[in-house]
Amino acid sequence: MVSLEKFYNGNVRALSQLISAIEYQQNGIHKTLGEIFPKAAGSTKIGITGPPGAGKSTLVNSLVHKFIDSGNKVGILAVDPTSPFTGGALLGDRVRMNEFPIDGRVYFRSMATRGSSGGLSAATDNATLALGAFGYDIILIETVGVGQVELDIIDSCDAVIVVLVPESGDSVQTMKAGLMEIGDIFVVNKCDRPGSDRMAADLRYAIDSWQRLDEGWNAPVVCTEAINGKNLDELFESVQTFIKYSKDSGRFVKQRRSQISKKIMSLLQSRFRQEFLDQIDSGAKIETFIDEIVSGKSDPFAAGEKLYRQFKV
Amino acid sequence: MVSLEKFYNGNVRALSQLISAIEYQQNGIHKTLGEIFPKAAGSTKIGITGPPGAGKSTLVNSLVHKFIDSGNKVGILAVDPTSPFTGGALLGDRVRMNEFPIDGRVYFRSMATRGSSGGLSAATDNATLALGAFGYDIILIETVGVGQVELDIIDSCDAVIVVLVPESGDSVQTMKAGLMEIGDIFVVNKCDRPGSDRMAADLRYAIDSWQRLDEGWNAPVVCTEAINGKNLDELFESVQTFIKYSKDSGRFVKQRRSQISKKIMSLLQSRFRQEFLDQIDSGAKIETFIDEIVSGKSDPFAAGEKLYRQFKV
Repeated sequence: MVSLEKFYNGNVRALSQLISAIEYQQNGIHKTLGEIFPKAAGSTKIGITGPPGAGKSTLVNSLVHKFIDSGNKVGILAVDPTSPFTGGALLGDRVRMNEFPIDGRVYFRSMATRGSSGGLSAATDNATLALGAFGYDIILIETVGVGQVELDIIDSCDAVIVVLVPESGDSVQTMKAGLMEIGDIFVVNKCDRPGSDRMAADLRYAIDSWQRLDEGWNAPVVCTEAINGKNLDELFESVQTFIKYSKDSGRFVKQRRSQISKKIMSLLQSRFRQEFLDQIDSGAKIETFIDEIVSGKSDPFAAGEKLYRQFKV
Repeated sequence: MVSLEKFYNGNVRALSQLISAIEYQQNGIHKTLGEIFPKAAGSTKIGITGPPGAGKSTLVNSLVHKFIDSGNKVGILAVDPTSPFTGGALLGDRVRMNEFPIDGRVYFRSMATRGSSGGLSAATDNATLALGAFGYDIILIETVGVGQVELDIIDSCDAVIVVLVPESGDSVQTMKAGLMEIGDIFVVNKCDRPGSDRMAADLRYAIDSWQRLDEGWNAPVVCTEAINGKNLDELFESVQTFIKYSKDSGRFVKQRRSQISKKIMSLLQSRFRQEFLDQIDSGAKIETFIDEIVSGKSDPFAAGEKLYRQFKV
């Protein structure tokens, strides 16, 4: 059990231990998370997503500096679900941390896939609770790509920045609808490269075709050169404007309620799974079913239904 | 309800309708799938995965021709989980189908994400049952990348081919463990390009370091130029050798048992979810919980536990 006393006293090591306990789904972790949940409500979660090589890390680093310069504390979670094992994560974390002041205003952590499908997005969401309750008021969640795991993670953010590069044209074509729906702000990074104007115009057109303008927010397209700092002020301002709009219009609260609903559902689902696994004593029962299925006497769908009925009784 | 009479009579349209019913999780689909399950047991499922641009489609097309030339019927499922919406899928299917004889020996279908997380891999697995029961003895499952959804899909294959190109060096570095564990056969495609020898040697080294040789199978690395047909005979032979080894050694049956076990578990999980959703009348109950959570009187973890207990009674 992670000591919340040290955590509440601002001990960074206790924070790191809590996030590890979240990743490994340590016994009793949900009780701890329930306790800290209300304390995390004041933080704002910003998701940054885009293809590999779009310059997300550089962009995130710049945003971090702008946020701390305006008096915030920033926690960063880097998630790469395309990598089933992240052996180099710890080393990578240290390299990234070197970019930030070491006075506790910034916390960086990469999240690794430890369990099965769904585990990573749940762990990331729980880690935002830890960061928020610890006192980080801005939480940046950096993900690679727009697959299902990333969509789940992005879904639990208050604001989403989609980062592309002039060369991303093709992926915008193929993933248009998905991208357009999740982004609140779009960035064309590395805009010194050829094709950036065209890319920005295409994006503009796609956004205007796909997004529901009646919602009151017309997602801006910001062209940046993160590495030279070009237009990063404009991006930072867009982020702040969006958050203000979202809070004023009631969208923020509406999204939070929907996030809570999804969280309860996913907790229930894993609870059922656990309970069921506890009940079928060391897999002996399931082996009997498999024998029947292999010999053609049953099928997985009938077996699932039968086991379900036995469990409900 | 899909008419199984037409399906059993070899009506391709009935097959397509059944796969659509699977994708949309039509009412009663599990009963239908249970019925056809034993008839699919004789088919062999081969997964082909690798990064975008590795030439998987060209390679798959060549393998298809080799399989039909040796008297098989081949069904192909193309899965791209990085694309949350595949508006162009239908058009793409027609283009791909042009590569094959139209005499019914080949069936091609792309699978789209229709539901939430987990839906795509379940739908793909169920579609292999439809193809197998329809009479396709070889089923090729083509996926992009090695994220969680792809791993789940690959997990239900009898043989897995990992396709890389000479430029994939970096991704091999970062995803070494994941890639090495899933592959039974490795391909370095586009091997006319510089760096292919180095890439093959690196792969060889990585495989020998990671794979459990005591299992009796040392995954081969085949260097191909799919577009010119170079070494495709060698690849085809490797696939056949592996399948023979797997069947002779008992690995095939062992894998199938494990696949069945996972399938039962995932069916149970979605069953619980559905039952629960039916029970909380039109979300009214969950809204009460959200109100309590938003006002700080509860948290999602406590709410999940409470709902779970109510459901169990």
